[in-house]
Amino acid sequence: MRIGLLGGGQLARMLALAGIPMGLSFRILDPAADACARNLGDFVQAPFDDPEALRRLADGCDCVGFEFENVPAGAFEPLGLCAPVRPAPHALATAQDRLAEKRLFEELGIPVAPWRAVSSPAELRAAAGEIGLPAVLKTRRQGYDGKGQRVLRDPADLDGAWEGLGCVPCILEMLVPFEREVSLVAVRGLDGARRFYPLSENNHRGGILHLSRARPGDPRQGEAAAHVDRLLEALGYVGVLALEFFEQGGRLLANEFAPRVHNTGHWTIEGAATSQFENHLRAITGLPLGDASARGAAAMVNLVGRLPPRELILALPGAHLHLYDKAPRPGRKIGHVTLVAEDAATLDQALPALLWVVESA
Amino acid sequence: MRIGLLGGGQLARMLALAGIPMGLSFRILDPAADACARNLGDFVQAPFDDPEALRRLADGCDCVGFEFENVPAGAFEPLGLCAPVRPAPHALATAQDRLAEKRLFEELGIPVAPWRAVSSPAELRAAAGEIGLPAVLKTRRQGYDGKGQRVLRDPADLDGAWEGLGCVPCILEMLVPFEREVSLVAVRGLDGARRFYPLSENNHRGGILHLSRARPGDPRQGEAAAHVDRLLEALGYVGVLALEFFEQGGRLLANEFAPRVHNTGHWTIEGAATSQFENHLRAITGLPLGDASARGAAAMVNLVGRLPPRELILALPGAHLHLYDKAPRPGRKIGHVTLVAEDAATLDQALPALLWVVESA
Repeated sequence: MRIGLLGGGQLARMLALAGIPMGLSFRILDPAADACARNLGDFVQAPFDDPEALRRLADGCDCVGFEFENVPAGAFEPLGLCAPVRPAPHALATAQDRLAEKRLFEELGIPVAPWRAVSSPAELRAAAGEIGLPAVLKTRRQGYDGKGQRVLRDPADLDGAWEGLGCVPCILEMLVPFEREVSLVAVRGLDGARRFYPLSENNHRGGILHLSRARPGDPRQGEAAAHVDRLLEALGYVGVLALEFFEQGGRLLANEFAPRVHNTGHWTIEGAATSQFENHLRAITGLPLGDASARGAAAMVNLVGRLPPRELILALPGAHLHLYDKAPRPGRKIGHVTLVAEDAATLDQALPALLWVVESA
Repeated sequence: MRIGLLGGGQLARMLALAGIPMGLSFRILDPAADACARNLGDFVQAPFDDPEALRRLADGCDCVGFEFENVPAGAFEPLGLCAPVRPAPHALATAQDRLAEKRLFEELGIPVAPWRAVSSPAELRAAAGEIGLPAVLKTRRQGYDGKGQRVLRDPADLDGAWEGLGCVPCILEMLVPFEREVSLVAVRGLDGARRFYPLSENNHRGGILHLSRARPGDPRQGEAAAHVDRLLEALGYVGVLALEFFEQGGRLLANEFAPRVHNTGHWTIEGAATSQFENHLRAITGLPLGDASARGAAAMVNLVGRLPPRELILALPGAHLHLYDKAPRPGRKIGHVTLVAEDAATLDQALPALLWVVESA
């Protein structure tokens, strides 16, 4: 079986590494000559919207998927003629537009923080008046890793804020004074079967994910899974999907979903019975889903900008290194480390040493 | 860091899959155009004894290893000039000659079954007279997966037996009425650190490994580890090594060792804290070794000759599929399945279904 992937970054790389042992092969399209999955399949170097390259990508593939959320959803039109696209492009289109996403959440009864659509400085002032400050102004499209958004704390911050984001359609959201950020990664098969990974508890730094901890048995698991379940069904979704939440006052508010394998699920490679990458591939190829339950305790730390000495990481018991073959640059995710332990208490004791090694790099 | 590998079969494939996430890259030499690791690194298609190809293999590599035991040990001579060979070729040379291997075991006080060197029909008769029948006649060199050996049960079986194996130097070994076959996989680092995996209990069919089960806490673990430890030290070994034993009357008799990652250690990918493949790479690149202890209970079943339906395997909870991208042929190992479970009792319950799927293929 051959899979086509739009995007050849670290998610494609980890998908290929999970799929090769299952007998899958990959064709990968990416505009960058040094895309980090380039050596793990046939590589097509071309823009995402090059129709001829897209046809080459899909030709002879059993299905086509995407690894990057900012692939233009329209790119899939020529593809759909050649091979099934999974998950279906309408899920991607919804995730790419914060307005459509919020509306879908509300339609499905998934709670969200108060928000307003904003398409001008006047609408921004009106929205800030209704929601109050602090609030976050986010572009409807093209935001990731903290890009395309700004926090507005004082009325003075409103001046030029919309213009500063490029005079594009935005939404203004209440800045929720949350206690925790959590996410739920789930997978839905071609036959409608669903599996839910344990919640991840996440910490960001400078808008980029820093640390995720698996929280099997978390009291919010059932609530989060119920929300994700409605989303999977509403989208007729096939593959892995992640939904991020803020926890505030004992309830979950949905932030955003990603129609793909997710950074907060990277710990599943060593920390779950079946990784999110393997389960995504099982789903889109119509194979039975694997068990999504936790194996022991696990946490993941991103390597951003700099690579700590490999030998210091590997000297830590339970540490597993994942490098993405990306040149280090400030703010760039170049790898992650998963730390596993028999139980949460052992993990708690081991984690500070890993954080120290990563942060001293 | 770049690693050169002589041999591009499934062991090279699994080494590359373990090394790529750690930031290692591979160059692989194999005479076969369809070598199953060919797509996981730079591929050099050439005979193992082509000096020019060997120089190309080693050029710019941090170290060179081998994945196949029957690589001519002499092949490493031109290599050693370009990059360190790990494990050192003398370990391979010893493993390639059953006579040298038995003598080393005896020198180290590692018990073996009674044996005699045999280089003629007359020596075969004399040896059979001393050892008794049944016995196994094995070529000193080039044997694997039951090839290059025959069992002699009656005096009549002696006629033509030596000639039947090609009139080459052999050894005759007592056929031990063993209770179990077990093996111990261990790793020694560049700094002399050692880690020992739990014993594997192995079942063969037609001379080919069929089933391995991890046996953490086995009563023979300490005895086996002590034998392997002496072997690692005597060879000044760097990398993963496996030693196979027969258990008879409560003691272990060494059968043979393999100076490489081993089929009876494939369960370590999912069933140990660090896989044998990752630990081999950590060892030969001078990185710290990883924990070799078991994660839950694990067993591995080889897929020989035929591929069972993928969806039946993946429907089994805890099953992980590893295909080698090899065309099915009778007697050919084309993949394996690892089954993991929380504990041995759960594994015992789950294993028959896997065996049924594999055997009905």
